[in-house]
Amino acid sequence: MTAFATSPRERSTQPAARPTPPADSRERVGAWMQQLQDEICAGLEAADGGNGFQEDSWQRPEGGGGRSRVLRDGNVFEQGGVNFSEVWGESLPPSILTQRPEAAGHGFYATGTSMVLHPKNPYIPTVHLNYRYFEAGPVWWFGGGIDLTPYYPFEEDVVQFHQTLKDACDRHHGEYYPTFKLWCDEYFYLKHRGETRGVGGIFFDYQDGTGELYRGPDPAGPAAAHSKAVGEPPQRNWEDLFGFVQGCGRAFLPAYTPIIDRHRDRDYGDRERNFQLYRRGRYVEFNLVYDRGTIFGLQTNGRTESILMSLPPLVRWEYAYSPESGSPEAKLYDRYLKPQPWLGV
Amino acid sequence: MTAFATSPRERSTQPAARPTPPADSRERVGAWMQQLQDEICAGLEAADGGNGFQEDSWQRPEGGGGRSRVLRDGNVFEQGGVNFSEVWGESLPPSILTQRPEAAGHGFYATGTSMVLHPKNPYIPTVHLNYRYFEAGPVWWFGGGIDLTPYYPFEEDVVQFHQTLKDACDRHHGEYYPTFKLWCDEYFYLKHRGETRGVGGIFFDYQDGTGELYRGPDPAGPAAAHSKAVGEPPQRNWEDLFGFVQGCGRAFLPAYTPIIDRHRDRDYGDRERNFQLYRRGRYVEFNLVYDRGTIFGLQTNGRTESILMSLPPLVRWEYAYSPESGSPEAKLYDRYLKPQPWLGV
Repeated sequence: MTAFATSPRERSTQPAARPTPPADSRERVGAWMQQLQDEICAGLEAADGGNGFQEDSWQRPEGGGGRSRVLRDGNVFEQGGVNFSEVWGESLPPSILTQRPEAAGHGFYATGTSMVLHPKNPYIPTVHLNYRYFEAGPVWWFGGGIDLTPYYPFEEDVVQFHQTLKDACDRHHGEYYPTFKLWCDEYFYLKHRGETRGVGGIFFDYQDGTGELYRGPDPAGPAAAHSKAVGEPPQRNWEDLFGFVQGCGRAFLPAYTPIIDRHRDRDYGDRERNFQLYRRGRYVEFNLVYDRGTIFGLQTNGRTESILMSLPPLVRWEYAYSPESGSPEAKLYDRYLKPQPWLGV
Repeated sequence: MTAFATSPRERSTQPAARPTPPADSRERVGAWMQQLQDEICAGLEAADGGNGFQEDSWQRPEGGGGRSRVLRDGNVFEQGGVNFSEVWGESLPPSILTQRPEAAGHGFYATGTSMVLHPKNPYIPTVHLNYRYFEAGPVWWFGGGIDLTPYYPFEEDVVQFHQTLKDACDRHHGEYYPTFKLWCDEYFYLKHRGETRGVGGIFFDYQDGTGELYRGPDPAGPAAAHSKAVGEPPQRNWEDLFGFVQGCGRAFLPAYTPIIDRHRDRDYGDRERNFQLYRRGRYVEFNLVYDRGTIFGLQTNGRTESILMSLPPLVRWEYAYSPESGSPEAKLYDRYLKPQPWLGV
């Protein structure tokens, strides 16, 4: 790689092709992110049937604020958090500016909705969702994704979850699902354990209509290779991408709630509960060691309680645990904590 | 700060004054670190009175290995881990080379003993110890420390713990305790919570006899300011420093075991247990977000189970918890999770 390949001058030829957002882009995306939070919370309250969410509104001294909602000790969920935030400020952090140098010297706007659910029943998987939108000077982009973390997995659940996401993706571009599925497997990976976090889903970032499907951390990774193999997709405008993200957000309830219904009354004992608590430790390890959003938030005076709402209410660590060969627990490790082509891709 | 101040040329004038280790330095420190592990385990088994430690020996493919020892479900300790390791390789990682550029291009040797104990009884504090020694080309250094993390603190315990450490320090240099006590407060600090991890102890790194007491992360921090105020200590040779580290290591049992004896039969209930589990979450947050040794180990294919043996066996997170004003729990936050001059310094 020569110095020219990444010089600001060289990069500045790219953004010329970036479509322009509408004048009311911030209002529209911000309002939709709030609506997504409302729809998700309503759907989860209906599924849980308990006391529902409690809300804390908060302001950010540097600009903006959010609504944190938490559900505790429900019928289905031991804890669930759904956060909306809309913030602005004078400068994006350096970690983002290295990805988008054109944003340097510009103020920024960012809005997003994120969610993590920790069910009581070990047969119901933990699930995470996050969609976000950024504007900063000449650049803007959408990012986000959703991924499923089962304890005692059922192939039917995994296929149905992925198929619902694929259907949402396919309505916008045939290469979205295969590319963003691979990116998800790459991102939600615990290198120190040699395990995926769960059975994945979709993940994407820096989608700005310039025709680039992938800019992930590993240019030699499977998603990058796939992206290269299929070539660049046709240029997409801001409305296309916003529509895609809306479709992904609304795919959550139909992707996940049928899984609740299939397992909510399934009996379990201490063995399954202990394994669930143990596996929740991996969720903590991922979020505190690898997750860019969590680490960034903690290091930049984000609202700690909202950021760490993703951590499970009760967690166990056990030195040198290893599942017994052939057991249901071993099945999780052997098949489900490795990237798999759940839909044949 | 000018470019010259940190250029390799400028730094290279320092090591001329560094004392030379004896020819058998590695054998002596390695053997002593094993002996420290043995002495600590014997003392803890006597205090616990249960089944004692189980040992796993392991080899590192790149060179060296270690002995991990874990005690579980004891009478006093819910879990305790004491690790010895002695490793070598072709190159120190970049994070250390930026601190010691003279080591670039040289192989390295590193040995150390580390320990974390999680007692059952919430009136007995969690405690951590680590001492380590490095050699790489022209440079060598000792580092380490010990710190105490109470849940329901007693001032008597804290003063006795610090006094035992101060006595060990004072036998070698009158400025060790006040400097390394402040450095400990700085290092074991959870920025995102605005809390110290506990009541501190001592912490130091890069002690190589060149007369520099302090090279911590914050050149404007209290330990650096203290170090500057008292001036440079007289030059210390390798034997002095090894003797100091031995003294610190052997101060652990007399610093900690009297605290066990004072509280091991104290009654507690769900309230105290729940608060202990909640506060253990801070231990996880510190170790996974801030602790350099843990993060370095996880990112460089260290033995994951030995590294994460420091994590508590059972942990709770609770959204937006805050102790009731005037309660015993509030007392911890109000006084003990802030740096205090426990011995008047």
